[in-house]
Parts: sequence; structure tokens; C-alpha cells
Amino acid sequence: MKAHTEYLWFNTPHEHDYVNITGEVARIVEASAIREGFVLVSAMHITAGVYVNDAEDGLIQDIEEWLEMLAPFRPDYRHHRTGETNGDAHLKSLLVHHEVIVPITAGRLDLGPWQQVYYAEFDGRRRKRVVVKAIGE
Amino acid sequence: MKAHTEYLWFNTPHEHDYVNITGEVARIVEASAIREGFVLVSAMHITAGVYVNDAEDGLIQDIEEWLEMLAPFRPDYRHHRTGETNGDAHLKSLLVHHEVIVPITAGRLDLGPWQQVYYAEFDGRRRKRVVVKAIGE
Amino acid sequence: MKAHTEYLWFNTPHEHDYVNITGEVARIVEASAIREGFVLVSAMHITAGVYVNDAEDGLIQDIEEWLEMLAPFRPDYRHHRTGETNGDAHLKSLLVHHEVIVPITAGRLDLGPWQQVYYAEFDGRRRKRVVVKAIGE
Repeated sequence: MKAHTEYLWFNTPHEHDYVNITGEVARIVEASAIREGFVLVSAMHITAGVYVNDAEDGLIQDIEEWLEMLAPFRPDYRHHRTGETNGDAHLKSLLVHHEVIVPITAGRLDLGPWQQVYYAEFDGRRRKRVVVKAIGE
Repeated sequence: MKAHTEYLWFNTPHEHDYVNITGEVARIVEASAIREGFVLVSAMHITAGVYVNDAEDGLIQDIEEWLEMLAPFRPDYRHHRTGETNGDAHLKSLLVHHEVIVPITAGRLDLGPWQQVYYAEFDGRRRKRVVVKAIGE
Repeated sequence: MKAHTEYLWFNTPHEHDYVNITGEVARIVEASAIREGFVLVSAMHITAGVYVNDAEDGLIQDIEEWLEMLAPFRPDYRHHRTGETNGDAHLKSLLVHHEVIVPITAGRLDLGPWQQVYYAEFDGRRRKRVVVKAIGE
């Protein structure tokens, strides 16, 4: 069994950003030389998410508004007693989930025609990391 | 390490459908001859989900109503400017998540007594795919 | 490829509880002697979840209130016609998801500085199980 691990760093210009990282993940899988296996793409921070969906700008704005509706910014989260102001970012991260597994088949990401891997930043403008780890053979 | 990959095709009769695929996944794991490992069950479309929960009809209706409440059909999603009308299906897919991993132990799906694997279709009446990939030994 | 499987048992004192199981998962990974791989942490019941987020008491209360808002207890879920009263627990489990994968790198959980693995119980005061399965080499 082979394993290959890389880390992607982000420092997004906005507090919220949606970054298509499919190409980066594909490059890492190619570097792994794994033909059959899984690649895990997992945010290492608790105020960011990783999801698979469409690379369509309108939809990304819909997702942003929807997350704000279901997990709104509010000044009065209990978490803010620690001095933080990002309680909503934790909840948004739980909602979209912080990681995905993509199957690797015949040396390539085995994604459907419209599936793209996104890094979703909910508390940006600082250095944050995603681990990309492939295992297989 | 062994790897075994199959694709399940769906063309559900309704726009929304909840299909218990536990038996299909178990059959694929048996075909893989893997005794210890993981099986990934992952929708290849961005308007469908895969989740693990109960095979109880009342609950499935509860899930359907609950998803409609949290990620409702609306005519005015920005995504619809592309000509699509399925913005809500993308959000429902994000909410239930598009994939699960089931552990394989002693050659069988290592699920709890009530756990069943479901394919959740949110934009049906067309051919769609799920990848089922087992790795292990 | 190595595989190592253990089960964690819970019998929480309250109906809802959030239990930090990071230490237990780390101990199981150490027992596995796996240096590079994945560990799956997956609830075996359909009224509990497993997620990765912060070990901060205020945030945990925020999560509890937020889940109650988005997936409230209600007497009138259809699932309750079976005699159950825990329809909301199923929906909460779907919302936070029932499992996570943590990468294992150089023999250790490859988590970010604030990431902790939590067992989220939504229908406690009874014996319930989580499967922890590591694969790798």
C-alpha cells in the first residue's frame, strides 16, 4: 500500500471564500502514483469546510446565502465569551462538513461530470491548511 | 491491497426518492472478496445524496419534509439564471452529504442493527450514478 | 495492509451529550501500529453523530441550541407512529453526520491544532456503540 500526503495552504482575501481545489487534488493524486484507492481532502481548521458540488457562480452565491440563513452570524453565541467572534463559522463548517473522500480509479479522480472539490472558508484572511492524503496501490 | 469498483445506476420514478441500497452495497463487498477495509458509497451527481439511517417509512417522510423546510424549492435561486430549476436539490445534497464510508469487517458491512445505506434523489427521472468502491485486504 | 478495529461503548447520563473521544481514537491508532493510513470513527446508531470541531464548552452549547433550532423535538413526527419519540434525534444525526475519517501520518492523528473528535449523543441513557477502524501500513 502506498500513502502520499500534501498540505494546501490558504490565506483568502475575504472572510468567506469558495475555492475550487479540484485541480490541486488531481495534481496530488498524480504525484502519488496511486492507481486505485481513496484521497481524503480535509480542512484542518474548525471554521472551514470541504465539499463536492458544482462550479457555478450563481450556485455558490446561493450556498453562501443559504448557510447565512441556517447558521447566521450573531453577536451572542456563547463561544464569543472566549473573545472569538466566529461562532457562526463553526456551525457553517459542521453544516457543509469539513472533508470529503474522492475515489481514485485508473489513476484519476473518479468524479461525476459536474463534481468539483471546493474549499469553503468561513473565517478567512489568515493562513489555514487542508490535508490531502491518498492511500492505495 | 485489493480494490473493487462498481457503479450503480438510478432512474427514479419521482423527482425525489429514497432508495435503500444496503443489499447492493453488501453484494459488491462480497464480490470484492475484501475481508477488512472500507467501502465508499458516493453519489456522482450534485443533486443527490447518500446517507446512513433507518429504513422506516414514516421517518423517510419526516426527512423529506425536513429537507424541504431547510432547503426549500424556490424559483429565485441565482443558479436558475443558467436555465436550471434545481437549486434546492444542490442544497439538499450538501445537507445530507453525498457519500458515506462503511467499514468492512470479517468480510461484511460493519453496520449497527438499524443502519441502512440510502440513495437520496432530489432531481430524479433521469439516469444518475453512484460509485461504490471497496479497498482493503 | 494492516487493519485494526475496536468498538467504543457509551451510556451517556443525559439524553443529549457531547463526548470528546480524541484520546480514545489516538490510543486505538497507537494500538494499530499503523504509520500511514486512515481511521474511520463512525456511530453505529442512527440517533447519534460523530464530528470534528472545537473542545470549547460555550461552542458546544451553541451547537446544541443550533441543532435544536434546525431539527427540533416535535411530538408529531411521522416516525413516532412506530411508538418512538426520537424523530428529532435522527434528523440531528443527519445534520452533523454520523462519521469522520481522520488521516494517520507518521503514526499519529493528523489533526489541526484545534480539531477534536466528538461523539454527539441525541438519544442517550442507553448502551450505544461507535466503530473505530484504522487501515494502512
